[in-house]
Amino acid sequence: MKLTSRIHPKKSGLPPGSIVPIEMPKKEPVALWSFEFNENSCSESHPDDIDFAALKKATTISWLNIDGLSDAHLFERIGTELGIHNLTLEDIMTIDQFPKVEDHERYFYIVLKMIFWDDTENDLEAEQVSLLLLHDIVISIQEKPGDVFNPVRERLRRGVGRTRKEPADYLVYSLMDAIVDNYFNAMDRLGEEIEKMEDEVLEQPIPATSFKIHKLRTKVTMLRRSIWLLRDVVSTMLRSESDLIRPNINPYIRDLYDHTIKVIETLEIFRDTLSGLLDIYLSSVSNKMNEIMKVLTMISTVFIPLGFLAGIYGMNFKYMPELDQWWGYPALLGVMVLFVVAFLLFFKKKKWW
Amino acid sequence: MKLTSRIHPKKSGLPPGSIVPIEMPKKEPVALWSFEFNENSCSESHPDDIDFAALKKATTISWLNIDGLSDAHLFERIGTELGIHNLTLEDIMTIDQFPKVEDHERYFYIVLKMIFWDDTENDLEAEQVSLLLLHDIVISIQEKPGDVFNPVRERLRRGVGRTRKEPADYLVYSLMDAIVDNYFNAMDRLGEEIEKMEDEVLEQPIPATSFKIHKLRTKVTMLRRSIWLLRDVVSTMLRSESDLIRPNINPYIRDLYDHTIKVIETLEIFRDTLSGLLDIYLSSVSNKMNEIMKVLTMISTVFIPLGFLAGIYGMNFKYMPELDQWWGYPALLGVMVLFVVAFLLFFKKKKWW
Amino acid sequence: MKLTSRIHPKKSGLPPGSIVPIEMPKKEPVALWSFEFNENSCSESHPDDIDFAALKKATTISWLNIDGLSDAHLFERIGTELGIHNLTLEDIMTIDQFPKVEDHERYFYIVLKMIFWDDTENDLEAEQVSLLLLHDIVISIQEKPGDVFNPVRERLRRGVGRTRKEPADYLVYSLMDAIVDNYFNAMDRLGEEIEKMEDEVLEQPIPATSFKIHKLRTKVTMLRRSIWLLRDVVSTMLRSESDLIRPNINPYIRDLYDHTIKVIETLEIFRDTLSGLLDIYLSSVSNKMNEIMKVLTMISTVFIPLGFLAGIYGMNFKYMPELDQWWGYPALLGVMVLFVVAFLLFFKKKKWW
Amino acid sequence: MKLTSRIHPKKSGLPPGSIVPIEMPKKEPVALWSFEFNENSCSESHPDDIDFAALKKATTISWLNIDGLSDAHLFERIGTELGIHNLTLEDIMTIDQFPKVEDHERYFYIVLKMIFWDDTENDLEAEQVSLLLLHDIVISIQEKPGDVFNPVRERLRRGVGRTRKEPADYLVYSLMDAIVDNYFNAMDRLGEEIEKMEDEVLEQPIPATSFKIHKLRTKVTMLRRSIWLLRDVVSTMLRSESDLIRPNINPYIRDLYDHTIKVIETLEIFRDTLSGLLDIYLSSVSNKMNEIMKVLTMISTVFIPLGFLAGIYGMNFKYMPELDQWWGYPALLGVMVLFVVAFLLFFKKKKWW
Amino acid sequence: MKLTSRIHPKKSGLPPGSIVPIEMPKKEPVALWSFEFNENSCSESHPDDIDFAALKKATTISWLNIDGLSDAHLFERIGTELGIHNLTLEDIMTIDQFPKVEDHERYFYIVLKMIFWDDTENDLEAEQVSLLLLHDIVISIQEKPGDVFNPVRERLRRGVGRTRKEPADYLVYSLMDAIVDNYFNAMDRLGEEIEKMEDEVLEQPIPATSFKIHKLRTKVTMLRRSIWLLRDVVSTMLRSESDLIRPNINPYIRDLYDHTIKVIETLEIFRDTLSGLLDIYLSSVSNKMNEIMKVLTMISTVFIPLGFLAGIYGMNFKYMPELDQWWGYPALLGVMVLFVVAFLLFFKKKKWW
Repeated sequence: MKLTSRIHPKKSGLPPGSIVPIEMPKKEPVALWSFEFNENSCSESHPDDIDFAALKKATTISWLNIDGLSDAHLFERIGTELGIHNLTLEDIMTIDQFPKVEDHERYFYIVLKMIFWDDTENDLEAEQVSLLLLHDIVISIQEKPGDVFNPVRERLRRGVGRTRKEPADYLVYSLMDAIVDNYFNAMDRLGEEIEKMEDEVLEQPIPATSFKIHKLRTKVTMLRRSIWLLRDVVSTMLRSESDLIRPNINPYIRDLYDHTIKVIETLEIFRDTLSGLLDIYLSSVSNKMNEIMKVLTMISTVFIPLGFLAGIYGMNFKYMPELDQWWGYPALLGVMVLFVVAFLLFFKKKKWW
Repeated sequence: MKLTSRIHPKKSGLPPGSIVPIEMPKKEPVALWSFEFNENSCSESHPDDIDFAALKKATTISWLNIDGLSDAHLFERIGTELGIHNLTLEDIMTIDQFPKVEDHERYFYIVLKMIFWDDTENDLEAEQVSLLLLHDIVISIQEKPGDVFNPVRERLRRGVGRTRKEPADYLVYSLMDAIVDNYFNAMDRLGEEIEKMEDEVLEQPIPATSFKIHKLRTKVTMLRRSIWLLRDVVSTMLRSESDLIRPNINPYIRDLYDHTIKVIETLEIFRDTLSGLLDIYLSSVSNKMNEIMKVLTMISTVFIPLGFLAGIYGMNFKYMPELDQWWGYPALLGVMVLFVVAFLLFFKKKKWW
Repeated sequence: MKLTSRIHPKKSGLPPGSIVPIEMPKKEPVALWSFEFNENSCSESHPDDIDFAALKKATTISWLNIDGLSDAHLFERIGTELGIHNLTLEDIMTIDQFPKVEDHERYFYIVLKMIFWDDTENDLEAEQVSLLLLHDIVISIQEKPGDVFNPVRERLRRGVGRTRKEPADYLVYSLMDAIVDNYFNAMDRLGEEIEKMEDEVLEQPIPATSFKIHKLRTKVTMLRRSIWLLRDVVSTMLRSESDLIRPNINPYIRDLYDHTIKVIETLEIFRDTLSGLLDIYLSSVSNKMNEIMKVLTMISTVFIPLGFLAGIYGMNFKYMPELDQWWGYPALLGVMVLFVVAFLLFFKKKKWW
Repeated sequence: MKLTSRIHPKKSGLPPGSIVPIEMPKKEPVALWSFEFNENSCSESHPDDIDFAALKKATTISWLNIDGLSDAHLFERIGTELGIHNLTLEDIMTIDQFPKVEDHERYFYIVLKMIFWDDTENDLEAEQVSLLLLHDIVISIQEKPGDVFNPVRERLRRGVGRTRKEPADYLVYSLMDAIVDNYFNAMDRLGEEIEKMEDEVLEQPIPATSFKIHKLRTKVTMLRRSIWLLRDVVSTMLRSESDLIRPNINPYIRDLYDHTIKVIETLEIFRDTLSGLLDIYLSSVSNKMNEIMKVLTMISTVFIPLGFLAGIYGMNFKYMPELDQWWGYPALLGVMVLFVVAFLLFFKKKKWW
Repeated sequence: MKLTSRIHPKKSGLPPGSIVPIEMPKKEPVALWSFEFNENSCSESHPDDIDFAALKKATTISWLNIDGLSDAHLFERIGTELGIHNLTLEDIMTIDQFPKVEDHERYFYIVLKMIFWDDTENDLEAEQVSLLLLHDIVISIQEKPGDVFNPVRERLRRGVGRTRKEPADYLVYSLMDAIVDNYFNAMDRLGEEIEKMEDEVLEQPIPATSFKIHKLRTKVTMLRRSIWLLRDVVSTMLRSESDLIRPNINPYIRDLYDHTIKVIETLEIFRDTLSGLLDIYLSSVSNKMNEIMKVLTMISTVFIPLGFLAGIYGMNFKYMPELDQWWGYPALLGVMVLFVVAFLLFFKKKKWW
């Protein structure tokens, strides 16, 4: 999630609704995964292409998962065959969308962010997931192949839960629930990261730490804004009056809403904690400085006056009576020791150590 | 209330509405406590199991208190016998809920946080309480056995107050009132803790103090968010049009609402105070530094020039006329004393001590 | 207004609506003050007890002022005789209420805070005032005897203004107006206190100052929250559709509302100013440090090199040609003077003095 | 605009609606300025007193401007003759009003603040302007004689613009527009003041600067709050359904509204800039300190070790072989020079200069 | 975007609705560019003047682009011929408008800001664009000639996209879309600028850097406010019930709305990042100071005590037995080396290097 990445669709000048394939560094082919299921049966396949005729005739519910956005032609055909608006197709293929839901009467279009912690980069990553809900057809589009939907697939195969017994809106809910459930994993890792930073700040406050805190806070801020919009998506679905989303699944969507709130609340606390950490960092640095200054001051305060005393008796005046006494040297040493003791008591009283 | 604890239900992948028993470190059995009462009588028992047949036939009001969440089977039976939705049962058994109220027509589901100050941990602890309000049946579910409902039990036994004279909604109000009343105890302890910190900050500002303030502020922030949601719960109940909550008890719920507001206002002020304390801490550290620097500067400013003077007359030039005069040494000492006095006056004027 | 004081009603466990007398350190008896007035007459008395029969029969408007909350029995009788709800009585006797208004159909219950600056404590104090508005009867209850209502009394006695010509709602307005008018006195004193602090911060920034600012800011924050609630009280009265508050006095209540807004605006600015003062304080401390460091640096920068030069010619090498020249000593002194002048010019250029 | 000035009307205790003349330091008489105009004619006069009979009979539109608030009797007569409510008259004579508009059916009462930069005080000043809009009569009341309405007068005299062709509401709009137009002048001066401060902060950060920033920020805050209320005034007028303000002038009032928004936006940015400046100030002070410390450290780091070396060879040990060699002195000097060069390179590498 | 520039229209005193030509430093003539198109044809010309008769008779859609605001007479004629309100004309010619949309029934007036990064000034620049949408006529007015509309022109010429097939409202949408698309370029440059600053802050924190951050933050704040208003413009258009904006283009305007949201979110994150950077800057400065102080303290702590030791043996006491021993000098040197080693270990333990 670099600051400047993905802001600009790099296509200014094209007419609205233009479908531009996402240029992937390694041109991977688009992968399809198809489920046809009803309460009694569930068939699964990895077709090379979409058979729209079969799709439209099917009496079962069809779930089509597409991994990869490089095949613009495929999406154009989806648009033509299933009646998807060009602007929707453009949104699907633009991977910097904010979460939103659009009711196009014939279909619902939902964009979400999948969040996960990338351990190799030690960073929070986001990936875009688009969901199209038509009557009896659900199409999910991911940027890259991923395993976040595996629990849903497993439940479909084994027929546990209600997914196979309910219409397509329950499947969409299940997919969204899988994505939001996955947020909690990212939150857990983020929380660990923050606790690691709290230790670092107290023990060894270096500028790099404050910068790491700053970076993490920016990331949490970005995430928070994205989840706020997700909350709006879910609450829009709650209030929807479309036929595609039945009132029956409202308790489930409300549950999803509660989870979203929980993510937001957690992020708010993370943000607050990170802001506080910067203050702690600053105060740690100041304390470090205080300690350094104490050492300097104690050493200087003890030895500069002593050095002056020694300097006095290093002078070459002809008439310095003390110099000629046998007790002069030990007496001066004694005075110096007394002096040191007095200062140590003074520092003790000031609680400097 | 650790940052990462309890964020993740650790059950991603299960179908929604799954009821997973809370794994307790020490597998304590679930404890039941049952009250059957009406205006004239009140019987109390500790049954081993719930007799749903008797419960449903009873003409009195039944209050069933369940301590512990380890018995998933019990909650499944409650679901089947009393018609509680699976998602509600899942919420009851997931101990990281935010406060909320749900009107399921047949019943009300209310989740609350019980807050208390744990003196052994010196920390604020939260525990989840679920309340189910059915017609003539109230079920309260706590994480651990606790004594916060004792005043209500005592009033039921002795028949004081209106609890025994009113329908089940008044009992639910009484339980919520007992929980919110208990907040004030936690607020009192928190206030004391903050005042202790104010003293610490002024007297001995060490990094650990700023970290403690930071931690306490995070906790107050978390609490505040939780109570804001509680406020919504209470105001939802105020506006409820269900039969289960009669308009008659609105004055009582409004009173509860006022108490919630008072807790929120107190927490806002605590948060503000703790934020302010971090500033005070920083300024205390800076002042400490100033004091250290003053000592260093005063000592250096007095003795470095004096040392230089002594150095001058320690030089070995052949022709230094002052060295040969009998008054050279005392004169120099006199000059030095004058010098010291001048600097002390200078520091005095600068108000450095 | 201590942080922990008055948070906890110290009565958890009692049934709602319990009336507990306020424990006063010195058990002062409750003082009554009664006015019976209409357009033509006004009689005033200090009865020992309330004659409810006479009160209910009276054709004039009755204003009863009660100073002190120690007599629980009195309030119980008020409840029984005038039909005041138990929760209202409990609120009257709990002196940590936030401002609110409650429309109980038969009567209005208004709680307000009286604010005054306590010159002996040098602190802002708040006192609770409860107002009960019944048809033709107004009861005002204060914690302690006070003179804030004197102007209203005086106007009643002398018959100036409209108080005697209008029904009871105008009297309640007059009492609230007297309380809010009194806020401006407290605001004035607070403003003076803040201006005093501004001087202190610039002249002698010590940690105690920052702590005083912090304390004052906490107080202003508490006050602000209280007045925000007062604003709600007034605007609720404006929108009231009860018979007890006639539309005729709306212009007066709107005037009261404007005054409340003025208090809030003033407090916002005070809060802003106090927050700013903490920043100024920190910058003052830093500047002080800069000044101290400048003194140290100037002294060290001048005398450490000079001391080194003197040290050079204090060495005991056999062959140091300079030592044997008659001009060695004055030349060195000359060099030293030049050196000092050069540094002074350098400091001048750096604008260090 | 002192913090404590004008908060308190200094009249607590008086019955609401009391009209107290503003005590002016120099008792200037109230000045009247009267315009009678319609599309064809415009007559102007400076009457000594108001001729209410003529005023009420006039078929032209009458604009009466009153400078000064010292003549309470005059306002009482305005109240009686034109039917102005006592509370309105009290507001007119209380010069610490916040902007507001009141629809009294028979008339509109509008209070505004006139803002100008006082170059002699180098400060932002505010003055209160009250506008009364009756049918065919407009009365404007200013604290002091001023020239802000001159453009409107000029347009009336010369008959340019629409003022003479439209009813009285257009005149009120013109007067408000003249006042808001004048804000931009004050904004310009304020912006210059802030840019001056930006230079000061970077070049010579002294505590007085931070205090000036703080003061200016407080003033901008006060102003902003006042203009927010002005915005409400204008938007209330937009939504007004009174006969006194015709829908025809809505485009003009919307234009006024846009100007108000522009003032608010500018003030928000000023406030943000001033807050930022305080941070810059603090960082400037820290940098200054860093520079001072660098000088001290460089001098000390070079000369303290050198002084130590010189001290070594100033010792009086009998057997110090180096002292007797002819090359001892120049060799030591050479070592010292190398030492200095080494440190200079070290500082160079650390980028300390 | 200087702070004081463009605040003041410099025309106070003129009647509202006055049309004042913008004084350009170099009096460039106004340039016209005209498109007449329908689905089948598209003709383009650069007329010297507007032929209003032809314009009004045309059966095609006419798009007239005007570069430059210096010709007041031209705008007056547009007002007369096309029925544009004087206040609209005044707004078009005042280049400091905030974004707004006005529905004048006969026409829509839309003001927008064009944002671009000026590489020569290294600064963000804004330019005002006014759009007038009449039935079949669109007039766009820019401050200076620019190429932001080129993509739209190109699409018109080549007939790609829907622009030529749709009524005038789609053209207005296309122009607004071109402007907002262009924002992303400015955002990209701004993001790069901020990342450059992040590096600067960590590597070489000088006051100029903090000032640059401050300036950039002010600019982002100004921009954010402007885009917020743009968002309102777009959402007003979405809700418009005028005939001039058909419901058919709502999906497109909603797409525009999404883009605006994306710009706002990006700016919020930029602002947050810049605020954080100031904190990082301050902590970098403090760390720098710590490092300087460490050098000073290490040097002083080692050499001041050593210097004192040397001073001791430079004293001229008669009886100092150590001086006469042959091992005195090497022994002292040995002690000194041990001393240095001890301190180095101490610093090592304190992790000072």
